[in-house]
Amino acid sequence: MSGAAVTEFGRIAILGLGLIGGSLACALKSRGAVGEVVGWGHREASLRQGVELGVIDRYCLDLVEAIKGADVVVIATPTLVAEDMLEQLAPLLDAKTLITDVASVKGNLLRAAQRIFGHIPANLVLGHPIAGSEKNGVTAAKADLFVKHRVILTPTTQTDPAALSRIRRMWTLTGADVIDMAVDEHDAILACTSHLPHVLAYTLVDALAGQQSGTDIFRFAAGGFRDFTRIASSDPKMWHDIALANRDALLSSIDLFATDLARVRKAIAVQDSAALLQTFQRAKHARDVFALMLAQNTNKDLEP
Amino acid sequence: MSGAAVTEFGRIAILGLGLIGGSLACALKSRGAVGEVVGWGHREASLRQGVELGVIDRYCLDLVEAIKGADVVVIATPTLVAEDMLEQLAPLLDAKTLITDVASVKGNLLRAAQRIFGHIPANLVLGHPIAGSEKNGVTAAKADLFVKHRVILTPTTQTDPAALSRIRRMWTLTGADVIDMAVDEHDAILACTSHLPHVLAYTLVDALAGQQSGTDIFRFAAGGFRDFTRIASSDPKMWHDIALANRDALLSSIDLFATDLARVRKAIAVQDSAALLQTFQRAKHARDVFALMLAQNTNKDLEP
Repeated sequence: MSGAAVTEFGRIAILGLGLIGGSLACALKSRGAVGEVVGWGHREASLRQGVELGVIDRYCLDLVEAIKGADVVVIATPTLVAEDMLEQLAPLLDAKTLITDVASVKGNLLRAAQRIFGHIPANLVLGHPIAGSEKNGVTAAKADLFVKHRVILTPTTQTDPAALSRIRRMWTLTGADVIDMAVDEHDAILACTSHLPHVLAYTLVDALAGQQSGTDIFRFAAGGFRDFTRIASSDPKMWHDIALANRDALLSSIDLFATDLARVRKAIAVQDSAALLQTFQRAKHARDVFALMLAQNTNKDLEP
Repeated sequence: MSGAAVTEFGRIAILGLGLIGGSLACALKSRGAVGEVVGWGHREASLRQGVELGVIDRYCLDLVEAIKGADVVVIATPTLVAEDMLEQLAPLLDAKTLITDVASVKGNLLRAAQRIFGHIPANLVLGHPIAGSEKNGVTAAKADLFVKHRVILTPTTQTDPAALSRIRRMWTLTGADVIDMAVDEHDAILACTSHLPHVLAYTLVDALAGQQSGTDIFRFAAGGFRDFTRIASSDPKMWHDIALANRDALLSSIDLFATDLARVRKAIAVQDSAALLQTFQRAKHARDVFALMLAQNTNKDLEP
């Protein structure tokens, strides 16, 4: 023992060292909650930067080496890569090592786990920190990224309660507000509040840019348009991955929206003044309530 | 003359004293460009406030009195009321008095003028300052509201060039960047960049709020959703008016969007990864160009 405090987590391996994985490492290290953070990834330059910045303690390019002796393995790669990671990890992990992730979609990973393991491993606790930044990469990592942000964990009936409790504790230590949710519910809600708005913003900007008067159109756009389309400046590859990973829930939310848009279109076409005004008024009321909720609460920054 | 400087505009009548009309009055008065500003409206309290704040010099509740001796009559009422104003003004005005307006849609007013006058009066110069604020009413009026903002004038072949020139001068004095545009082009462009985004934002929020898990859904929304839906907190009556006034152009832009959304939906459904990524990448590029343009240019605030 010789004076060294016992940390809550001995060794954590972060697979994919970007903003989220890096910030988790920073948060846990700043709380003295982890003995050692090991980074793994394909881009050695990023990993070396991670060590130089003190985000991680060391890195390995070999996956077997990277996860050796880890209490927790955090899959922090892009969404679609996370499925591959599960596959690569399957033969390497023992039942004691906890596995978690940070991807924006959970159902595809749960299905991948079922396919790969033949069941849902008791030590797999899927999670989604709803936090982010306009900046990417390990250089943007910061210890307070998750403070007062929600982290949604999606345990199943097969999840070991002790494993769930440990992962919840890990996120609580970052200052996050951790809650549990069913996988399908998570994916349906995030499809509505995050994935659908991104699809709508990308679609609108692309549709207008494709018009004859494309550039001209933007010349006369103002502040409202800027805010409305801000999320269309997000990373296209990331949102492409999310859209495909959450395909079914996203298609449902697109259909829900398209049905409502057709209804509003009709109200405008037939000049149904009362219906149109009612829709706009209901929306304003709901949006004002949401803005209040957000102002008083968490999740003030950008997702995914 | 006795020492009084000759102002560029002798008397201007503002019909409907809100944020836009009030700010125009402030801007012209602060430049010493107008002899007298007379306010007219239905709400005497607002008009009295306008005098107390120095926004206008005096007010009348009687329209005939209000426009007497005015060089310029500015219709600054809500969009759908502007058509009525034209009708009320028709028998009262001589050919020397210039008429202009500030509404967000121009085609409906042009059609109203044709119907009311039997032709487009040479002294009618329709205009649209693309400026606004989250605050409404005469108390929010400020002299610099239009500085570096675009004002679009929509003259027709029947417009007197001297009248156009005077109205252009009036707006130039406010610090605005004044340009001319065909009425149909104005309405089509604004439908795409302003009216459609508002319809989409209202529709999305209303669709989600109507879900079983309505309130719950918003609990897990984050910064991206907040920005995307900010315009759904705009005045429902104003946007209802605009939607109906610009019906045809707005329906076209809704159809353009819906067609593109169906295309994106299909790419997600059949997992056409390349098509989806291309759309998102094109959109991000266009949005980044637009953001740069906006940062370097005008129209930094809220429309309409």
